[in-house]
Formats: sequence, C-alpha cells, structure tokens
Amino acid sequence: MKLEKLVGDRFKERPSDCQIDSHAIMVRGGYIKYVANGIFSSYMPTKRICRKIEQIIREEMDAIDGQEVQFPVVMPASLWEESGRYESVGSELLRFSDRNRSPMVLGMTHEEAAVHLVREYGQSYTKYPFMIYQIQTKFRDEARPRGGLIRVREFTMKDAYSFHTSQEDLEEYYAKCHKAYENIFRRAGVPEVISVKSDSGMMGGSVSHEFMLLTPVGEDTIAICKECGFSANMEAAESIIENTRDEVSNPLTEVYTPNIHTIEEVCDFLKSPKEKSCKAVVYQRNEDDSYVVVFVRGDVDVNETKLRNYLGCEFHPAVITEESGLNPGYIGPVGITENCTVLFDLSLKNTNNLSCGANKEEYHYTGLDLDRDLPGIEYHDFAKIMEGGICPKCGKHTVTISRGIEVGNIFQLGTKYTKTMNMTYLDSNGEAHYPIMGCYGIGVGRLAASVCEAHHDDYGPIWPMPIAPWHVHICAVRSDDADVKATADKLYEELQSAGAEVIYDDRQVSAGFMFSDADLLGVPVRVVISPRNLKENVCEITARDKSFSYKIPVEETKDKVLSIIKEMLDKANS
Amino acid sequence: MKLEKLVGDRFKERPSDCQIDSHAIMVRGGYIKYVANGIFSSYMPTKRICRKIEQIIREEMDAIDGQEVQFPVVMPASLWEESGRYESVGSELLRFSDRNRSPMVLGMTHEEAAVHLVREYGQSYTKYPFMIYQIQTKFRDEARPRGGLIRVREFTMKDAYSFHTSQEDLEEYYAKCHKAYENIFRRAGVPEVISVKSDSGMMGGSVSHEFMLLTPVGEDTIAICKECGFSANMEAAESIIENTRDEVSNPLTEVYTPNIHTIEEVCDFLKSPKEKSCKAVVYQRNEDDSYVVVFVRGDVDVNETKLRNYLGCEFHPAVITEESGLNPGYIGPVGITENCTVLFDLSLKNTNNLSCGANKEEYHYTGLDLDRDLPGIEYHDFAKIMEGGICPKCGKHTVTISRGIEVGNIFQLGTKYTKTMNMTYLDSNGEAHYPIMGCYGIGVGRLAASVCEAHHDDYGPIWPMPIAPWHVHICAVRSDDADVKATADKLYEELQSAGAEVIYDDRQVSAGFMFSDADLLGVPVRVVISPRNLKENVCEITARDKSFSYKIPVEETKDKVLSIIKEMLDKANS
Repeated sequence: MKLEKLVGDRFKERPSDCQIDSHAIMVRGGYIKYVANGIFSSYMPTKRICRKIEQIIREEMDAIDGQEVQFPVVMPASLWEESGRYESVGSELLRFSDRNRSPMVLGMTHEEAAVHLVREYGQSYTKYPFMIYQIQTKFRDEARPRGGLIRVREFTMKDAYSFHTSQEDLEEYYAKCHKAYENIFRRAGVPEVISVKSDSGMMGGSVSHEFMLLTPVGEDTIAICKECGFSANMEAAESIIENTRDEVSNPLTEVYTPNIHTIEEVCDFLKSPKEKSCKAVVYQRNEDDSYVVVFVRGDVDVNETKLRNYLGCEFHPAVITEESGLNPGYIGPVGITENCTVLFDLSLKNTNNLSCGANKEEYHYTGLDLDRDLPGIEYHDFAKIMEGGICPKCGKHTVTISRGIEVGNIFQLGTKYTKTMNMTYLDSNGEAHYPIMGCYGIGVGRLAASVCEAHHDDYGPIWPMPIAPWHVHICAVRSDDADVKATADKLYEELQSAGAEVIYDDRQVSAGFMFSDADLLGVPVRVVISPRNLKENVCEITARDKSFSYKIPVEETKDKVLSIIKEMLDKANS
Repeated sequence: MKLEKLVGDRFKERPSDCQIDSHAIMVRGGYIKYVANGIFSSYMPTKRICRKIEQIIREEMDAIDGQEVQFPVVMPASLWEESGRYESVGSELLRFSDRNRSPMVLGMTHEEAAVHLVREYGQSYTKYPFMIYQIQTKFRDEARPRGGLIRVREFTMKDAYSFHTSQEDLEEYYAKCHKAYENIFRRAGVPEVISVKSDSGMMGGSVSHEFMLLTPVGEDTIAICKECGFSANMEAAESIIENTRDEVSNPLTEVYTPNIHTIEEVCDFLKSPKEKSCKAVVYQRNEDDSYVVVFVRGDVDVNETKLRNYLGCEFHPAVITEESGLNPGYIGPVGITENCTVLFDLSLKNTNNLSCGANKEEYHYTGLDLDRDLPGIEYHDFAKIMEGGICPKCGKHTVTISRGIEVGNIFQLGTKYTKTMNMTYLDSNGEAHYPIMGCYGIGVGRLAASVCEAHHDDYGPIWPMPIAPWHVHICAVRSDDADVKATADKLYEELQSAGAEVIYDDRQVSAGFMFSDADLLGVPVRVVISPRNLKENVCEITARDKSFSYKIPVEETKDKVLSIIKEMLDKANS
C-alpha cells in the first residue's frame, strides 16, 4: 500500500475534545471519524487492526471447539421479554418499533438469541457441552460514551455462549476459556492484560472475571496484591478491615456539636481519628424512594455494587426530607427512625468508643459500642477496598489500587437464561434439566484502542506486530533521487512478494513530515532509504518502540526485515 | 469437525412456510433459524459459506485498490437529511430515536456515510480516484421479506464507493469493477451469473448494472437476447414495437358497446385483434391522488418503473371516482377530461384503425388514428418488453424473458450525493468541483442462498468448492467396525493436516441417515468408508453433483481427495 493513496487525514494538533491520548491519536492518525455521539466510522488502518484481532480471537475460540454463528443485530422484543430483560435492563437497551409497529431491540448482548438458536438442538444430554460464538456489531445506548473507541455506543464484539449439563463441566470449560483469553491477549501483543475477579452485574450468574489492560486512564478500578497475585475489580473485591477494641468502653454520651455535620468535622471537633467514628451513608431505593442507611467506619467508603447486590435493586443518593425522620448531619445507629433499612458494614465489627450522630439536631454521641448498644446486629461487606488494605487472599497489607480498561470478560451464568426461556434437556434417565451456561465477551475496537492507550508515545501509537496495520513502513526520503526511488521500489516489491505487509511512503515531502506520519501509523518496523544512507550502501531499520536501530547493507535489508517481523510475531505466539 | 458436534438440527420434512427450495433446504439442513420476519440467525455452515464469499469479495476489491473501512449501522438522521433521503426514502428506512431523543436511522446503504468519511480527505484533485468499501450488517425494513435469506430485513452486504474527478475516470473504474464482479462470481463457483442493464431507482445516477443468477424463482425479470448477448432488467429494457398503418384510415366512429369494459371484451366484440386497440391504464399520484392515464397498444403492458422515472414521483393503481370525469371501461384518448395527465406509449406510434373508449358510458370508438385525431401528441417508452419482442441491440425478434435473483449491482451515481452533501475538491487550477461517485454492492447472504437455489437437487444444496462449508465429507459407515473407524480416523487426521476442511461423520447411525445428512450439508466431495469397501481395500469418493464416483485404494485416498479439491478450486479461480 502506498501511503499517498491511504484515505484519511493525519495532523499534528491534538483535538480539543479528546480527553485521553488514544482517542487523540486515533483521530490525528486517520484511524477513526466521529459520526455521532459514541458512533464512529473506521478508516483502513483501524479495520486492518481489528480484522487481525478478530482472526486471533476466532482461532482461539475454534481451538476450544467454538462454532462461529451469527445472531441478528435487530431482534424482536419478545425474545427479551422471555428472559425478563426487556423490562429489567435500562435505557442502554435501545428499543424501537419497525414499520409494522412490532417492538424491536438492538442487540447489546445475545444470551437470548443464543438460547433461541439452540433451544431445540440441545434437547438431549448427548449434545453437550457445546459453545457457539459470533463476531458482530452491537449497540448499547450508553449515557456517556467517552474516549474514542474505548466506550462507544456501536461496537464490534466477540460474544461466546457455552452450554453444559453440570457445574463441574462449566467450570472446566470456563478455565479453558480463561486460558484461551490469555492466549488471545498474548497473541495480540498485550501479554500484560490481567484477569480480575469481577461483579456479574446485569448478566446474572456468580463467578466472573474481567480482563484488564492497566492504564491510568482506565474506567475500572482494580485491587491488586503484588505479593500473592490476587486481583479483583474494586466493585467485587472483598474488603477486610481489622479493628482492635479499646480496653475500656466509655459510656454512650450525648455531645453538643453545633454546626458540625460531616464526619471530618466531628472528628476534628472531638479530636479523635476517623477510624474511631461511625459514618452514615444514605440512599433511596429507585422503586419507592424508601431510605437505606449504611453505617461504615469513618475512613471507609461504600462500595455501591456490593450494596446493590445485597439489596437486589437500584438506588440513588438520598434527598433527605423532613418527613423522613432522619436528621442529616446527625444520623447515628442508636435511636434511628424505624422508617428505613439500617445496614452495618464489617468495618464496624469489633469496635468501641466511636463517635456517631445522635439522631437529634446539633448532637453527636461519643462512646458508641455497637455490640453493647445494639446487641445482635449483623455486619455485611459493603466497603470499598483501600490502597494499603488487607489482601483477601494472603492477608497482608499489600493491596494496591490500579486503573484499567476492561478488554474482555467471562461469566458463569448458571441457569438464569435457560430457566426463564424454558430450554431443557433430558438426561440419560429421561429427566428434564435446565442447561448451565457460560458467556464470554471481547470488544474488538475497545481492545484496539486500549492497546493504543497502553502502548504509545507523544508521537503516536506503538502497535504490537501481530495486530499492526502493516508490518513494515518504508520511508523513501528524497524519492526524487533516482537511486532512492529505485532501491525503495525494489524493496517494496520484494517484501510484498515475500508476504510482508508494507506501507510505502514515496511522497516528495520532507523527512520530518514523513516521520511524523510514520509515527502516527505506528508500524513496528521502519526502513529509511535516503541519499545519505545509500552513499554508505545501507538502509536504516528502526523499531517504532526504539528498541533497536540498525544500518544494514542494502542487499541484506529485505532478509533482515523479514527475520525481524518473524521474530516479533513468533514472540507473541510463543 | 465431527458432524456429531455440529450445532443445528437437520430433518426431512419440508417446512410448510417455505415457498422456495433454497429456503426449505437451509431450514432443513441446519443453516438458518427464523428469529423474526425477515430476520435470521445463522448456524456454523452458513457462517463458513459467507466468510468464504466475503474473503473472495475482499480480495477482488483490494485488487482494484479498494480500501476496507467500516461505517456505522446506526447513523444520525442528520446525515440522511443532508442528502435529502431522510425524507425521500420510504418506510424501508428504519427511523427511531435514541435515549436522548435524537433521531437515528439503521443503515440500509451507506452513500451518506461514505461521503461523510472522505469529505475532508478529498479536498484536492491529487487524492483521486479512490475507492472505499465495507462488509457490514445492513437493515432494510422490507414490507414483504421472503424466501429465507433471499429477501430479508437484516443482511450482510459488501458496499463500495468510488470517487472520481471525471466521468471518464468513473467509467474506467466502473468497467474495472464490472470485471472484478465477474471474478467474484466465477471464484464463488457461479460463473453463470450475468450482468444486465438496470434501473437506478432510489440510488440516483444514470448507468447501472445488476448481476443476476438465473433461476425460475427469481424476483427479477430479465430480457435476454440469445442472438447478440443483450440483457437488461425488465424494468430498464427499452421496448421496441413496430407498427404498419393500414392503407386506408377509417373515420372515427362511435359504436354502442353495452356491458363491455375490458380491452379483451372490446376486441372480441369488434372481432379485431388486440394490436388494433388502444388501451387505457390509469394511476393516481401518491402525493395528491391526481390521475395519470397511460395509453398503450392493446397487447402491451405498462412498465411502471419507466413511468415512475418519467413522472418523477410515486403512484398507485387508480380508484376512479365519479368526480374524476373518467368513465371506467370506456376511457379513450379523444375527448378525455382535461382533469388528468395523458400519456402515450411508443407502441401506438404509426397506427390507425384502432378501437378505443369513447369517454361515454357504453360507447367505444373504432377508426382511431392518433396522428389524425390528436395531431401533435408525443410518444414515450412506457411499455414492458415482451417475449419474442424486438431486441433493442440487434433489432431481431429474439427477446426471451427469464427470471433471476439480483446478487450484486453497480451504479454510476454521478454527483447526486457530493452535491447535496457539499463535498468538493479543488482542481489543478484551484477551481472547486463536485466529485463523481460510483457505488457497488453485493449481498453476501443472498448470494449464498441464490447459489443454493441455482445449485441443488431434491436432497439438498450442491455447494461449489470455493464456498462450500467444508471441502470433503467423510462418512464412516458402521463406525463400530474397528477397521472402519481406524481407517476413517486416520483419513480425517491426514486430510486436516494437509489443509483440507473436513466434516467427519462417525456416528453409529444407518448409512441412509448418514447420506441424507451429507446431502443436506452439500459438501462437494464425499468419501465413504464401509466394511464392504474395506474388504476390497478401497474407499469410495463421490461428487455431490454426481459428476464422478471412484473406488480408490485406501492408501491412495488422501492424495486423490486432495487433488480433486485442488482441481475444483483451481477451476473456479482460472
């Protein structure tokens, strides 16, 4: 491919609407073009990158006996009514009517379609296990698309669905798929992707993992233990907080605390550390606006995902009215109105001498001892894990918090969909059961953008060889020089004939202009042919990531380039 | 792939809702599953067939310098408002609103998106010509989906868009693309696809061709001249009708014709041939219900596409009211109400002594001589070409009418989209012009289904080797026989190692059951390994299309199969 012919503009200025680097690079480099909020068109380089990612995914899915199928983008609402998700999923599920006023949806995930496709096929235990997958366009009507291809509304996704007759079989397959995902990310040139335990969210099911590419601009927060290798999405990470009771429990004492509302103010006023306070965090259930008060230790934050899973419903931060019976700024566990759900976090276990609200305007308590003052209460884990906190696996104070982009996920779904959609099989005794499902997703465009985010410099992306839009970028500096042109033309032909994917810049532009464009295309190997080099009878071969730079005799350049490409590909595949 | 593991059911009974064979076969053979009207999921065999078709298309598009890109499925209405098609296209364009109430559409074609993608890039003449294409899901809210994958609402399509600075350049590229399409259909195993001149419909532009796979169940009607090779879609085919005037023109005479309404009845009553009558066909414009009366020779039918292009608007068959001034059954050109548009077809040119309606209840005229009675009227081509009619190219009475399925089309669009969407480039003199566009489509799933329709027998499809889901189908008859199993297992492994795509049936089922399944999968080469064959130390190799059947020594089977596969692939590629 001649660069001169490549459709798409490249430019220097960072677009002002790009918050993250990969987004700016992909706009500046002629990778994507904005069409509407969260909707992009892709130019050839992106398409080439994505097709390579798709092929790697396909090979790894086929290797674990996946069968590639295709579900529709547009589905009848009735299919989603069967599973109950037509009602339960929010407005990210795009609902509309066709010309006959039939209600339809745009597929944002395809569990329903998968069950629909195999419901008749899977009627006998002899057919199990099996896995079907597709690589297809999805639409999720995100409220806040961001970061270019990182969080979009329309995207290409590989989604796979496995069906099993026992939990053991699912778990065995799940482990296989976990391994296949590791292969995929390694083969795509990002072996640093880690898997973390995650919350299953609207998918249902119990065990699930997310695959994260760590980068400071990631949307997800991950707790990692460098000691033992534990990792989990902050949403799912168990919080362990150890307390030691003071030897003497002081009596519960009302203190006058005028104009003092926040936990910080209370602690300052009482000159006690935040760890010795009991903080109230108040929510309201979306369904009926009823109040939920969560008490946590003063230095701890509520993990809303855990709370959501515990309550089994959606909620929002509370707007506290006079009728509620709650005294904002003075809410405490003792004497609180019965008009609300009261919950206690594990961070309050084994504590005494805490300060807390007294449920009375301008008054707090000191000397709270929950076990004494409210005997019999239950504690649950509602807390966010903290930097330096205790690792739930090895028990050391070694937790670090990182940010990452979720580039894939795997779920043990159980029977949520087969049950609601009434898919059954007969076992060898003729008894009917619901098959057990797993599902496994990877966002193709998001992976491409995440790699760009994790692997770039100030000048552009540094694409790993296995997914780079081209293998090698030839720059013919001063192509008006007949020697340069002839040498470059020949190398271009020879490398292409040998199966290398070459982008060739023979424009009559300055070397600086040429190199900026090459940086923006991020091709891993660059060959520079210039009058100066040719005087020494060499070509210059450099790595986009600056890991090497050689001057190689002209006649050896082709072989050297081919061997570098092979080495870089082999490394990812090994 | 072991057939035992292939997800999807195969069965004998023809589903009652399948009107055409390919639809029935694709349901019976586990290729597709109905999801909603015109919306299907695809099982693995279909996906494999379609991916092969896509790869052939991709290679041929790349060979004519196409750049693969991707446009969104979901687009903002504003993009279609720019071109004017948001208003002009009917309800097959699916319109809806997203969560922010922004009006959106589902892409049924992507001219607007293509112009949007390259509008900035193409600002200088130096960038031209270029072509971009995608292979992507489309949605067209068809009123009457039919025939399985033949006419659906959701489908995968390759759509390409080329941009030029002169009509000559477009024409040159158009010819290249025409050739590429011939390559695609030949390489896909259907060299019999023909190209026909067509009407451009809502796409705009002038010259266009459709690629047709001829089959009696096709939706399109095609006029073909076997003498000179002329072919055109019925919608676009010029109609040539020659008349000879009688020497003497009789006077225009009113005849009492009670209870006679149709042209057949009139001709019977007057004992004159239909060719000697002038028939009225009445329509109403959709926009204002105004009447359009088309007069044609009595034996000729109106081609509504030609009429639509002439009128430049949509219309429907008339409902004639009393207020209209028209006398249904007695409408004629002389003395007709001025309350309607009156048009004359070329088939009436050079006629006399015709019968026609007298615009008066129960009366007709004889002796109509249009040139005498209505001097100065204009004739236009509104007629359908007829079987045995005159070929517009060679002038002989050699026209035959066939039916076909449109599997591809190419259009010279002109500046319709660049003008409305204000895409311009500067020429070498600094003057601004609108680029000239071509567009080029192929429906992937429709091509697969059309091949099935054109190439099948009572038992299933006969897939051409280049797009067959697998190359070879091994049937191990009596796999409980250790010898059979070992021989078949070995062949399966060896063929796969040699790069052949193998589906392997080692189920313990009857030979009849096995062969029915093999017929439904339509794999071009079959190898049968059975105790009886092994007694003679042979395997049986047969063609799905029955073109050959060999008994080959076991140890030579692998090589023979590989050479057959190669030969069949080479033939399509040559």
